[in-house]
Amino acid sequence: MKYEIYYQEYLEAIEATLTEYLPVQVNHPPVIHEAIRYAVLQGGKRFRPVLTLAACEAAGGDFRQALIPAVALEMIHASSLVHDDLPSLDNDLMRRGKPSCHVQFGEPIAILVGDSLLVMAFHILTKLDSPQQVQELLDEISTAAGTYGMIGGQAADLLTPREELTIPILDYISTHKTGKLIKASTVSGAIAAGAPQKVRNQLLKCGECLGLAFQSVDDLLDKDGYTRLMKDKEIRQKVRDLIATAKREVRSLGSQADKLTALADFLLKRMP
Amino acid sequence: MKYEIYYQEYLEAIEATLTEYLPVQVNHPPVIHEAIRYAVLQGGKRFRPVLTLAACEAAGGDFRQALIPAVALEMIHASSLVHDDLPSLDNDLMRRGKPSCHVQFGEPIAILVGDSLLVMAFHILTKLDSPQQVQELLDEISTAAGTYGMIGGQAADLLTPREELTIPILDYISTHKTGKLIKASTVSGAIAAGAPQKVRNQLLKCGECLGLAFQSVDDLLDKDGYTRLMKDKEIRQKVRDLIATAKREVRSLGSQADKLTALADFLLKRMP
Repeated sequence: MKYEIYYQEYLEAIEATLTEYLPVQVNHPPVIHEAIRYAVLQGGKRFRPVLTLAACEAAGGDFRQALIPAVALEMIHASSLVHDDLPSLDNDLMRRGKPSCHVQFGEPIAILVGDSLLVMAFHILTKLDSPQQVQELLDEISTAAGTYGMIGGQAADLLTPREELTIPILDYISTHKTGKLIKASTVSGAIAAGAPQKVRNQLLKCGECLGLAFQSVDDLLDKDGYTRLMKDKEIRQKVRDLIATAKREVRSLGSQADKLTALADFLLKRMP
Repeated sequence: MKYEIYYQEYLEAIEATLTEYLPVQVNHPPVIHEAIRYAVLQGGKRFRPVLTLAACEAAGGDFRQALIPAVALEMIHASSLVHDDLPSLDNDLMRRGKPSCHVQFGEPIAILVGDSLLVMAFHILTKLDSPQQVQELLDEISTAAGTYGMIGGQAADLLTPREELTIPILDYISTHKTGKLIKASTVSGAIAAGAPQKVRNQLLKCGECLGLAFQSVDDLLDKDGYTRLMKDKEIRQKVRDLIATAKREVRSLGSQADKLTALADFLLKRMP
């Protein structure tokens, strides 16, 4: 199966779910909802939610069961982009070809937009029917987002001077800043599918490999991160190994994992 | 009963729970956990968590049942203070007699601290035994913190020029920026106690009155907010009425509401 075949169906379901759950009132309170929609509905690859849906199918579920955790993960990702772009952090003026949120709405609103998206991501989990799933997904996603996950990676990235970077520190930054939320995507898909622990563990390991592969490909594209310390050739080999391991982890799930493995192959094709 | 009699017992339980759940590793990732503890463990009145525990007892529970939602609410409050103090928002250099978080640790870390505290507040709810309670508390607390609650009030406060303030706009700001999290405190106490819907509603109404009274007393103390548009005498009468209503709402709960009504009386005593 090719990634492109099912990607459009997933993407439409994700955009529709985001549009449904993002608040529409623009004037009460003023501006903030408009700014939230601006920050989230700008397109983007939606890699995390697509992965969540593919993992849900791989675990034997219908992808629609995983739409809520999928958009929760995308909201957390969007929150981190809005805050990362702030002047005191990366000071990025553009995001996906448009003025970044703080440029468009001012820094104070951009701070509140990032905060709102975090709150909203967790709030949306309450829309699930099963309290047990709410608790499990809240645990998985908040652990992945917090100081032992994404934010921990952001802090390490921020506080490590470029000249002090080592491979172990870069591994820590990559597996946390990017990797933990990607790992949470595959695990959340498995939880939403109601999969047994064995399948969750397979998808966890698959997600860990995909997370590190994703970041390594980004580094090659941006000439950043690992490219400071490793030869491009070595990084490419590492990505190929990671993708092979990711696919092997879910092989026993059979054809229901076809979309997930197609997504893994797509990552490989993105590699320059 | 006097507020001071039980306050110390509540406070010790709250500080112990905060200390237990805030991460202690200071170097991995670097600085962020130290900055989080700095931001939260600075003392403060702990009004929201104390109120949560008192409401839990008023609803017939043991206050220890409500410690987790109590500290979740305090973490959200602490997050909002760290972000409010940032240079592009209130630019406050001091907080509780010490350099504010961004002064002590730098603006980028302060942004991440506020984000971490939001994530942590929701994460800690997963520590409860009952998935049903996790779902209910997550719904209550995230709604109170988000754009229809605290953050909505912050946005309205930020975007309303002082010369355009009216009583309805001030009511909106006060009931949202401060009031919603205080209302969530009494409701969360009731949920933690496993109280029936009728009792939850009583505590909700009580919490709404206390929230607005709390903000009005703060305005009188700071000569801010309502004091711009109302005479001090009128505000004092409004506070007395709100406290009377708050107490009346829980009168039928009998002596188990004694601590809650003592807290309401204490608010009145703070009034200048």
